[in-house]
Amino acid sequence: MPKLIKSINDAILVQPGEASKLAQRSTVADELFPEREAAEAETKENAKAIDGLQDALWAGRSRALLVILQGIDTSGKDGTVRAVFNRCGPLGVAVTAFGRPSEEELAHDFLWRIHMAAPKKGMIGVFNRSQYEDVLVVKVRGLAPADVVERRYEQINAFERHLTENGVTVLKFMLNISKDEQKERLQARLDDLAKNWKFNADDLEDRKLWSDYQKAYEVALDRCSTEHAPWRVVPSDRKWQRNAIISAVVRRTLEDMNPKYPKTDWKPSDFKIT
Amino acid sequence: MPKLIKSINDAILVQPGEASKLAQRSTVADELFPEREAAEAETKENAKAIDGLQDALWAGRSRALLVILQGIDTSGKDGTVRAVFNRCGPLGVAVTAFGRPSEEELAHDFLWRIHMAAPKKGMIGVFNRSQYEDVLVVKVRGLAPADVVERRYEQINAFERHLTENGVTVLKFMLNISKDEQKERLQARLDDLAKNWKFNADDLEDRKLWSDYQKAYEVALDRCSTEHAPWRVVPSDRKWQRNAIISAVVRRTLEDMNPKYPKTDWKPSDFKIT
Repeated sequence: MPKLIKSINDAILVQPGEASKLAQRSTVADELFPEREAAEAETKENAKAIDGLQDALWAGRSRALLVILQGIDTSGKDGTVRAVFNRCGPLGVAVTAFGRPSEEELAHDFLWRIHMAAPKKGMIGVFNRSQYEDVLVVKVRGLAPADVVERRYEQINAFERHLTENGVTVLKFMLNISKDEQKERLQARLDDLAKNWKFNADDLEDRKLWSDYQKAYEVALDRCSTEHAPWRVVPSDRKWQRNAIISAVVRRTLEDMNPKYPKTDWKPSDFKIT
Repeated sequence: MPKLIKSINDAILVQPGEASKLAQRSTVADELFPEREAAEAETKENAKAIDGLQDALWAGRSRALLVILQGIDTSGKDGTVRAVFNRCGPLGVAVTAFGRPSEEELAHDFLWRIHMAAPKKGMIGVFNRSQYEDVLVVKVRGLAPADVVERRYEQINAFERHLTENGVTVLKFMLNISKDEQKERLQARLDDLAKNWKFNADDLEDRKLWSDYQKAYEVALDRCSTEHAPWRVVPSDRKWQRNAIISAVVRRTLEDMNPKYPKTDWKPSDFKIT
């Protein structure tokens, strides 16, 4: 495990202060996980370990873990939640999906709804999309003035620093798929009747803006990969590689947080149950 | 399945308008599920079916399911969530545990925090404890005047009717364990070091009030088992029987809700992905 997690981090971490070079990053990870079967077994083992670690996290109730999943349409955010967190289950994990903001959300600053959904102590929170939408779709589609968007990178950094200084460990994953892979996945939503309901014509509009989104992601990765909350770019063309990578990082992060069952200030013999 | 679910309902449903006769209800269900292995296999199959049904529920996004789990300490509320809903996972299920109300919650009427946690369309919401605490612990411990508690039964009925009239199906399960079984489970929390953190000396105080709680439960069952949201009393001394029963009822309820994938108003050939 220690050696593997170092290889994974070397491959996917965006070093704070360095350029992310998104375009040069691979969307497959054959060198990390060459074999599907082994990768799937590893994911299962990691999911089991995460479940055990979350139990201790809950018992201690002093810290929380926030897992941010960002990626373009079809990049696999929901599938990641299932593979990594179903073993843990809804008792220990709260998922929040951030879609188009409501009127009330827009009436507040852009981090208000994000802060409301921050995981409480003892929990793992998973964000399906996040505060980064406000420097991604908002930037690409021109939904806010450029100078407002420009200020958000540092505001996000300050907010994430606040969370980490208050016991919330923040993990940020960008699910990186190729343009060809997205085409296949969108096509599958058209070809498979059971997937038709997932197809959204708007996704094609976003696809036309592919390079604008890539540029916006690159700026977000460059400016918001910090020591306290670095970005990781996950090769995601192969779902089983993506799941193996993310589950390994989540597991290792929880192991490093080292949650402990609280010590009791009594002896079992103090009590007699009648 | 249809025959089994009828037997289950006959055994556990509190018929609206009739006395619940809680004291006469069994805490084991050997006639329904005599064999552990078969019951566990059934639970797994039900959990898998629930997962598939929830997917359609989400796709349709027009209805929701609320599952209320009530029961005294150690009755197995968390364990039920794991057995029945982990397969579904945190994407489709939101669990809310209701503990001692906060100052802000107390500053509102007792249903305010409950309403805030109601499941959104497409989701399954699970309540670990619920509005019924306000006619159980509140009544037994005298935390509100008797006439205030007295009015709450009808208020709860009206609230649940409101939910069901607005697309939320409400399932209420009372996890019924015997006093002996609770003793064993509390003792296990003392004997097993890994479970020590779960032990709470307050639970012993509640245990001393066992018969008061049973009486308070009986009144809640008698007065709040309605046509729109009936109570079910689940024999819960054997966890595998409890899980098999609850998963069967949840599955059948979702099957009856019959969630449909939405029809699309386009043909796949309308789109060409480039």
